Amino acid sequence: MSKKEAIQPLTAYFQRENIRNVVILTDENVNRLYPDYFSGLQEFCQLDHYVLPAGESSKSIETAVKIWDYLAEKQYDRNVFLLNFGGGMVCDLGGFVASTYKRGIRFANHPTTLLAMIDAAVGGKTGINLQYLKNGVGTFYFPDIQLPVDISLLKTLPDEELRSGFGELVKYALIGSEELFQKLCQLDSIEHLEPDFLTFCVDFKQNVVKKDPKDTGLRHILNFGHTIGHAIESYGAEKGTPIAHGLAVAQGLYYESLLSTKLGLLPQNEWQQIAAFLPKHFQIMTLTEEILSKLVVFMQNDKKNSDNLINFTLLDHLGHATPNFQIPISEIQTYLLMTRPSTLDPKP
Amino acid sequence: MSKKEAIQPLTAYFQRENIRNVVILTDENVNRLYPDYFSGLQEFCQLDHYVLPAGESSKSIETAVKIWDYLAEKQYDRNVFLLNFGGGMVCDLGGFVASTYKRGIRFANHPTTLLAMIDAAVGGKTGINLQYLKNGVGTFYFPDIQLPVDISLLKTLPDEELRSGFGELVKYALIGSEELFQKLCQLDSIEHLEPDFLTFCVDFKQNVVKKDPKDTGLRHILNFGHTIGHAIESYGAEKGTPIAHGLAVAQGLYYESLLSTKLGLLPQNEWQQIAAFLPKHFQIMTLTEEILSKLVVFMQNDKKNSDNLINFTLLDHLGHATPNFQIPISEIQTYLLMTRPSTLDPKP
Repeated sequence: MSKKEAIQPLTAYFQRENIRNVVILTDENVNRLYPDYFSGLQEFCQLDHYVLPAGESSKSIETAVKIWDYLAEKQYDRNVFLLNFGGGMVCDLGGFVASTYKRGIRFANHPTTLLAMIDAAVGGKTGINLQYLKNGVGTFYFPDIQLPVDISLLKTLPDEELRSGFGELVKYALIGSEELFQKLCQLDSIEHLEPDFLTFCVDFKQNVVKKDPKDTGLRHILNFGHTIGHAIESYGAEKGTPIAHGLAVAQGLYYESLLSTKLGLLPQNEWQQIAAFLPKHFQIMTLTEEILSKLVVFMQNDKKNSDNLINFTLLDHLGHATPNFQIPISEIQTYLLMTRPSTLDPKP
Repeated sequence: MSKKEAIQPLTAYFQRENIRNVVILTDENVNRLYPDYFSGLQEFCQLDHYVLPAGESSKSIETAVKIWDYLAEKQYDRNVFLLNFGGGMVCDLGGFVASTYKRGIRFANHPTTLLAMIDAAVGGKTGINLQYLKNGVGTFYFPDIQLPVDISLLKTLPDEELRSGFGELVKYALIGSEELFQKLCQLDSIEHLEPDFLTFCVDFKQNVVKKDPKDTGLRHILNFGHTIGHAIESYGAEKGTPIAHGLAVAQGLYYESLLSTKLGLLPQNEWQQIAAFLPKHFQIMTLTEEILSKLVVFMQNDKKNSDNLINFTLLDHLGHATPNFQIPISEIQTYLLMTRPSTLDPKP
């Protein structure tokens, strides 16, 4: 996939929809690496750029206000098109700005990270962080055109970010395709991802989202690994040692697969495959009593949970998940306490 | 309509939907006048109050952030229900907060001003003001339950605000019902509004919105009077002598009716009825060259306009409007310059 192939569907769309003003929202890193990526669009429309400081701290209401003000000062009307060119931060924030500027303008995502390609850029969830609440504010708002992924952009992605995206990719395999899982098990290096792997994830997510756009039931299967994963992410942030989203999710996949087996859903031999595979690519922390009790507090604060039950998506077998199990906190503590990647005994 | 009648559909709804936490969003004035209005709900749910400073300046992103943070600090999940109890500011802002907190929570409007009862509280437009752009940020997001209007709340409404709402009410008559227009002509005082008048407006707006929820065509008929009205409002604000929305709209109704006749649409005898009626209730400013040129600049900045054409909804006859006329600025200037309520000659 070259940038020409990414631009072609856009130019056709702009001409069909008579779009003349396009604002490219990107961050400093992407802008430095790919300053002319979309220059071919200039023949077809007026291009404007808004470049954000890189990093999650830009995913804030303060940044959204700056972009809204910029669009208003430039007197862009409802026909302006926002093109988000970056990772999850740019896609989430840009989608939120698009969904709210003058009550909604058209937009598309062209993701530059593996994580964004298979997750943030697909599915219509937009969001910004409140001071103490990740994605505390956002909307459901869908891109007007889904662009083909440009896997060549991953060449410049730092290893940790590629690995983080790989965590999310493993999730799709676990919940959606045993075949993909087996292929990932045979992968010699995460740098050798095949475009098909990504296409599977995008298509799988789009199918799920089509059936449950507002995340009221089925879509929760996409949260596999995320209940514990988010808690680990929050725990890392609180400790001052932030953990990349996909690396936290990978640990969540590990412990939620274990939970699936302990609860009698996932066959033990399949759990053993997962337990052998994940630690090859990801560091899995041991859950001491202290850590586990902190994770439980974060899980209770999660927007999907209420009272003393925690909502989990669990695996019934490799390649298939079921959402919305309500697991009592006491069981989570019993099953996950002090499990160690090296001394695993999944029997209850 | 007593408060009991307003509360009954809510309690039934809360029980059906298993809603346990309700936050009432209101302003200081309404809270002072009606502190116990919803106290009957306490039997059915946990009631919380968030009281805003009164006035348009609260319709800001800063206020939205404070409410988001408040909801997050109180750890309200997606099942919290927001009940907007106030005028247009409260309904617009509250609707926006509801549409974005955790990607959308359920809400209802219970309007306390005439303007909000027949306009802001109906139709799913939410919004806050950017520094230089009224409703620059917002969403389309519909209340989950439409509550019956409580006209008794208007007893405590200041005269100017009642008159402002009356301006909007006249709009509905002009675009939707000659019969209502004739009734309004016979009204001895705007304090003697009949509940039926309001019901007509709410039903009319709901019907239009149902056909065009995202304001792409037909819904523009609701903008009758607003192209010039908004410009007059902006002009007043810039001069430091703010004009209430409905009072600016009333002047817009006047000049856009005149324009309808000048352009050969509205029969002259009908224009004369309108021209006789409006100045009885509203002050209509004379459009000098200086004023008109400023209004034109504001109209050009309006989100609905592009290039040198201004989008107008015009009357074809009393009780019927057609949206989306593109009128060149030069014609607007020719037709409206120096017309005076006292020396009207609508002939081109």
